[in-house]
Amino acid sequence: MTTGYVFHPEYLWHDTGTSAGLLPANPAAGIPPAAHIENPEAKRRVHELIHASGLLGELMIIEPRRATVAELLRVHTEAHVQHLKAQSDLRAGGDAGDGFSPVGHGSYDIARLAAGGLIELVTAAAHGDITNGYALVRPPGHHATAEAGMGFCLFNSIAVAARHAQAELGLARIAVVDFDAHHGNGTQAIFYDDPSVLTISLHQAGCFPPDSGWTHENGTGDGAGYALNVPLPPGSGHPAYLSAMHQVVLPALNRFAPDLILLAAGFDANVWDPLARQMLTAASYREITRLLVDAADRLCHGRLVAAHEGGYNPWYVPYCALAFLEELAGTTTHVTDPLAAAVAGYAAEPLTPQQQAAVGEAAQLISRLGAAVTAS
Amino acid sequence: MTTGYVFHPEYLWHDTGTSAGLLPANPAAGIPPAAHIENPEAKRRVHELIHASGLLGELMIIEPRRATVAELLRVHTEAHVQHLKAQSDLRAGGDAGDGFSPVGHGSYDIARLAAGGLIELVTAAAHGDITNGYALVRPPGHHATAEAGMGFCLFNSIAVAARHAQAELGLARIAVVDFDAHHGNGTQAIFYDDPSVLTISLHQAGCFPPDSGWTHENGTGDGAGYALNVPLPPGSGHPAYLSAMHQVVLPALNRFAPDLILLAAGFDANVWDPLARQMLTAASYREITRLLVDAADRLCHGRLVAAHEGGYNPWYVPYCALAFLEELAGTTTHVTDPLAAAVAGYAAEPLTPQQQAAVGEAAQLISRLGAAVTAS
Amino acid sequence: MTTGYVFHPEYLWHDTGTSAGLLPANPAAGIPPAAHIENPEAKRRVHELIHASGLLGELMIIEPRRATVAELLRVHTEAHVQHLKAQSDLRAGGDAGDGFSPVGHGSYDIARLAAGGLIELVTAAAHGDITNGYALVRPPGHHATAEAGMGFCLFNSIAVAARHAQAELGLARIAVVDFDAHHGNGTQAIFYDDPSVLTISLHQAGCFPPDSGWTHENGTGDGAGYALNVPLPPGSGHPAYLSAMHQVVLPALNRFAPDLILLAAGFDANVWDPLARQMLTAASYREITRLLVDAADRLCHGRLVAAHEGGYNPWYVPYCALAFLEELAGTTTHVTDPLAAAVAGYAAEPLTPQQQAAVGEAAQLISRLGAAVTAS
Amino acid sequence: MTTGYVFHPEYLWHDTGTSAGLLPANPAAGIPPAAHIENPEAKRRVHELIHASGLLGELMIIEPRRATVAELLRVHTEAHVQHLKAQSDLRAGGDAGDGFSPVGHGSYDIARLAAGGLIELVTAAAHGDITNGYALVRPPGHHATAEAGMGFCLFNSIAVAARHAQAELGLARIAVVDFDAHHGNGTQAIFYDDPSVLTISLHQAGCFPPDSGWTHENGTGDGAGYALNVPLPPGSGHPAYLSAMHQVVLPALNRFAPDLILLAAGFDANVWDPLARQMLTAASYREITRLLVDAADRLCHGRLVAAHEGGYNPWYVPYCALAFLEELAGTTTHVTDPLAAAVAGYAAEPLTPQQQAAVGEAAQLISRLGAAVTAS
Ligand SMILES: [Zn+2]
Ligand SMILES: [Zn+2]
Ligand SMILES: [Zn+2]
Ligand SMILES: [Zn+2]
Repeated sequence: MTTGYVFHPEYLWHDTGTSAGLLPANPAAGIPPAAHIENPEAKRRVHELIHASGLLGELMIIEPRRATVAELLRVHTEAHVQHLKAQSDLRAGGDAGDGFSPVGHGSYDIARLAAGGLIELVTAAAHGDITNGYALVRPPGHHATAEAGMGFCLFNSIAVAARHAQAELGLARIAVVDFDAHHGNGTQAIFYDDPSVLTISLHQAGCFPPDSGWTHENGTGDGAGYALNVPLPPGSGHPAYLSAMHQVVLPALNRFAPDLILLAAGFDANVWDPLARQMLTAASYREITRLLVDAADRLCHGRLVAAHEGGYNPWYVPYCALAFLEELAGTTTHVTDPLAAAVAGYAAEPLTPQQQAAVGEAAQLISRLGAAVTAS
Repeated sequence: MTTGYVFHPEYLWHDTGTSAGLLPANPAAGIPPAAHIENPEAKRRVHELIHASGLLGELMIIEPRRATVAELLRVHTEAHVQHLKAQSDLRAGGDAGDGFSPVGHGSYDIARLAAGGLIELVTAAAHGDITNGYALVRPPGHHATAEAGMGFCLFNSIAVAARHAQAELGLARIAVVDFDAHHGNGTQAIFYDDPSVLTISLHQAGCFPPDSGWTHENGTGDGAGYALNVPLPPGSGHPAYLSAMHQVVLPALNRFAPDLILLAAGFDANVWDPLARQMLTAASYREITRLLVDAADRLCHGRLVAAHEGGYNPWYVPYCALAFLEELAGTTTHVTDPLAAAVAGYAAEPLTPQQQAAVGEAAQLISRLGAAVTAS
Repeated sequence: MTTGYVFHPEYLWHDTGTSAGLLPANPAAGIPPAAHIENPEAKRRVHELIHASGLLGELMIIEPRRATVAELLRVHTEAHVQHLKAQSDLRAGGDAGDGFSPVGHGSYDIARLAAGGLIELVTAAAHGDITNGYALVRPPGHHATAEAGMGFCLFNSIAVAARHAQAELGLARIAVVDFDAHHGNGTQAIFYDDPSVLTISLHQAGCFPPDSGWTHENGTGDGAGYALNVPLPPGSGHPAYLSAMHQVVLPALNRFAPDLILLAAGFDANVWDPLARQMLTAASYREITRLLVDAADRLCHGRLVAAHEGGYNPWYVPYCALAFLEELAGTTTHVTDPLAAAVAGYAAEPLTPQQQAAVGEAAQLISRLGAAVTAS
Repeated sequence: MTTGYVFHPEYLWHDTGTSAGLLPANPAAGIPPAAHIENPEAKRRVHELIHASGLLGELMIIEPRRATVAELLRVHTEAHVQHLKAQSDLRAGGDAGDGFSPVGHGSYDIARLAAGGLIELVTAAAHGDITNGYALVRPPGHHATAEAGMGFCLFNSIAVAARHAQAELGLARIAVVDFDAHHGNGTQAIFYDDPSVLTISLHQAGCFPPDSGWTHENGTGDGAGYALNVPLPPGSGHPAYLSAMHQVVLPALNRFAPDLILLAAGFDANVWDPLARQMLTAASYREITRLLVDAADRLCHGRLVAAHEGGYNPWYVPYCALAFLEELAGTTTHVTDPLAAAVAGYAAEPLTPQQQAAVGEAAQLISRLGAAVTAS
């Protein structure tokens, strides 16, 4: 088994400016400049830990390239591609669409390098050069719709890679699992009427985007049934996510029988993340990943390709991402979560009735998935 | 009405070193250096916003002084005072007790300046120079017990100020309200058998310290009934805290009839804090503060004196603290929470049965409080 | 004797963005984002040190206000004022003119607050409320010409204050001394043909602006002789600057007999500054300031009003500025330059022939200054 | 031709703490915490630029290992090795010897990884796997003597590598060239009486260590004549350094005929460095490096192995290091010094008489070098 790894310093150079957390600085309104919450630090520390732990030496490094415009247009409108290019050409950059998604000077090319990195990773998996892989990219992608950037996302890298896999690599049925703390609304919207791509998002109910990611959002037209959401209440942790895995994600994957699993690997459901209220630990990410790796082994020759999405705590995300990547690579390093003891009590909390209800409601929809006629 | 304000740059100079979030850096274990999570940034931004908003001009500035050893010894053991002094004298500093509470070089004197700042504020309130007040201090204090520092806390400034108020200022009955997201265990322990000081802590259940702050911790000996805890489930927000205020805090204050209310004003129950999972907004802090100001007006000539405790999101804590301080001063500025719209949906969530149960359990203990014989 | 002090948090909130030192970030060209070199840190540390050292308690705090457009137009063109307003209104800001002078969103109002702060300080000096004073402002001003911003400078605050002093305060003859490491080209240009304002700039020869600040730039028309420059070679330190003070600045001031001395107090000629190669220490600034204070006492009732200009080393500028301000206030604090010993050897170096020549060449021009007909 | 490259994230994790520039924080003395000037940022940016520019893809990556104690003891005393280990084992670290050289927790192992990285690079060069190479290490080494750390340096990596080359690799005669802005005093002292190692240091006269690096320091005993120093006056730039190269370094190398050239590649003589007053640009480093590469080609099969030493400007050092490394590798990338235009005027300045004198005095000592009997 070989695990691929995509990384490039330009991913760290995507410039989100001096916004105060989420908002552009505006001294007159009492908003002084600061680092934007979607800044390179957490990701830089993930990469350095992967290297320093020795894990890097066990991975196959896959060089990214910039996605072509033609590849982007498989998913995005021409207007959106041109808008991002124009914003990116501005000396001080601009915004991708919603006023919360900074486009730095040059970020258009970096966003293409992110999407292209994922394309290369999927290609390597399709060719059997790697079994699975992880692209540690910025900017993130899962909130971006066909028409607009949103929630720090510029292009939807996972959607672009999925369409590439279908068009060029002979991978017809694709499942996108999204465990980022926020709803994978962009990916869902792009494939909402398409039964060839199953989207499953586990996220904090009512967090971001507002009023998005409810269970009743279940696909439309031919895609009816092929969008699944598990909106977990704020404060959900290990038991809730594991329950969602066992009752929703794994049964759905089994039933759908994908040729490829794409993973929107946001780590912002961790217990110390500023942008969500969930309570996962590195051990949680390890266990969830183990289940996904097993499913990929069982269903699609191990093909599981992950893109980094959110994750905003610079001192805890690295341990979550390392546990995840160790599991992908089927190995461990000498680095263990140094904060495990500090959260030991949290993970022990039992499932609440509310969490149980959220999972149960989603589980009832699995039967709407047409059983696969042909597996890969 | 006059509101006092204590601040000093040395509070920002308390040096928590290059710990990686919570843990001392340890490259061999994969823990690279970074900023300690209890660093000056959020507090510096609170102070600058108070100034820039114009609110500073409406406050009475009270100069802090260093608490004397005799004043510290009213609460702390001689061994603890000497331990902190010794750790602080080390060139690279040390730790206050639990391995998570950095003592920078010189932090002993800064911690004395924090406790002394609160003493000065309480003195000004007792003398009628101010009605209420806020000390924007570092290091925090509410986890520190008589014998040891803990949870970033060195000396328990609020306890030191409470004892000073009793010994020197003729304020016999003191209520300590603590809305920091973590249990005010140190303050509780110091006054656990003392009916002259009522402690009430609202906090995230099972968060920090581990296994602390449960409802059954209710005081002992003469102090039986005089410690109240409302351990709210992770994910609790505006409705849960307001319910706790109305069903526990205000009835308890009414029954206890304090001469002075001290407030452990941690802002880490905010919806974007990394160190807890609660969901308060600036508007929540405003409303909670209004209730406390009203209670102080009704019960003890408005004497409400607050010390800054936790609060770790540098771009949101300032708006929470500003709303709190505006309410203390009975005014508003032109600065409104710029993130209010982004969390509008959160605050609307109704009370969950679990939250209701937590509040209800605590409410049942109010009757154990001996009704005050003499009000101030 | 009373020393005035102007400071406001908005000065720290002037947002110079994520430029890599001097240049806007441009990942494609290998320029990753970073902090702009003209960022708040050095200035924030100056203010905190003034406060923490106890010096703040001995100063008279003067509240700044925004300079009016009419006040700006005494110096700047309407086109420049409107250009800065337009750039400042852009969501991501813009540039003041030369591509090296970021204008943050809202910086127009902050630059007006800087100029207005200096106006208030000069007004207080004219009214005798203070003897001298220091405005710790951002953005800086001395490179800004009538028509354009330049070198991090937006409006030329000193020029605006000088014109205000002449127009409203009855101070007819004004000397501007500039010991910033870079040429005070903007101030010089604004008053180049005006004999009522003497400009004297000590700076590193050939540094910034390029090819500016040579001795032969000596004023024009009626102003011929009223612009003096001492372009000191790179590597000049204490002896060279003291020589320039004694042979050029003091004789020129004596001969000009100003009603007010304005000081462009840049601290970037310090021995550890990244943006120049000079070698002054805190002791140098103390001695230079003592000479200027004495001159002001002798010549114009002590009226010496200083504006902060450059100074980019966050850990050394504070000691230079503190020594300067102590001397202005005629006092000392318990804080002494902790790095004095580390540079003791540097200051002992004798004057080089090149330095001597530079000073001597400038000294020869003093006789071109028309002797004052009327002193104040 | 192949160029080797040594890098490891642990080099960035060497923790120099919260010192205020050069000094440990000490709030009571007015020294607030800040980043130590020898922090990872400049080096991290060098590495990212090497990667992003595409240069990394043309280099042979050499994995570092930790130098063994036996390898260290070839240079250092047992007392020093044990002292560093003991300081490194302290939870908060300590100091390497002079109070200015922080040892972070775990830095003993990182310093061993730096020395061992250089050993591996020299080994690869001796074996012909690479022609030349660059180790981008932290902590630096050239100030460390046999007995003590100093000036941010813990172990003298270059000296350790030199002794290894002599003992294990059959490279008898070694020249150490040091263009760091500060005197390579440690390396000089270690080899002061040893004619098998020629040390040549170009540096700012009288900078650091104080009163060190004068021309008359010329070796002792058998080593008499085998230590050369060119103490250039503050403000020296391109012409002075090139003159020193042509009149001192190259003639001395030619005469000595080394089997290996080691280069202490500090980039703090750059024109914007805070810790020195020299004026080199990226173009200067390129030209100096070209001369050294040519000398190595001519004299010792191209064997030129460089260790990163100082360099403290995070936004300019990367372009200096990139130009240096491009020249080592005999290639160029698309990244050119974006600040070249801003300093074009500086480099044009002619040699001053003082600079000429300093170079000339050193040149006269070359004849004391015994001409090599056997070249490699
Ligand atoms: Zn997310
Ligand atoms: Zn807390
Ligand atoms: Zn300057
Ligand atoms: Zn150096």
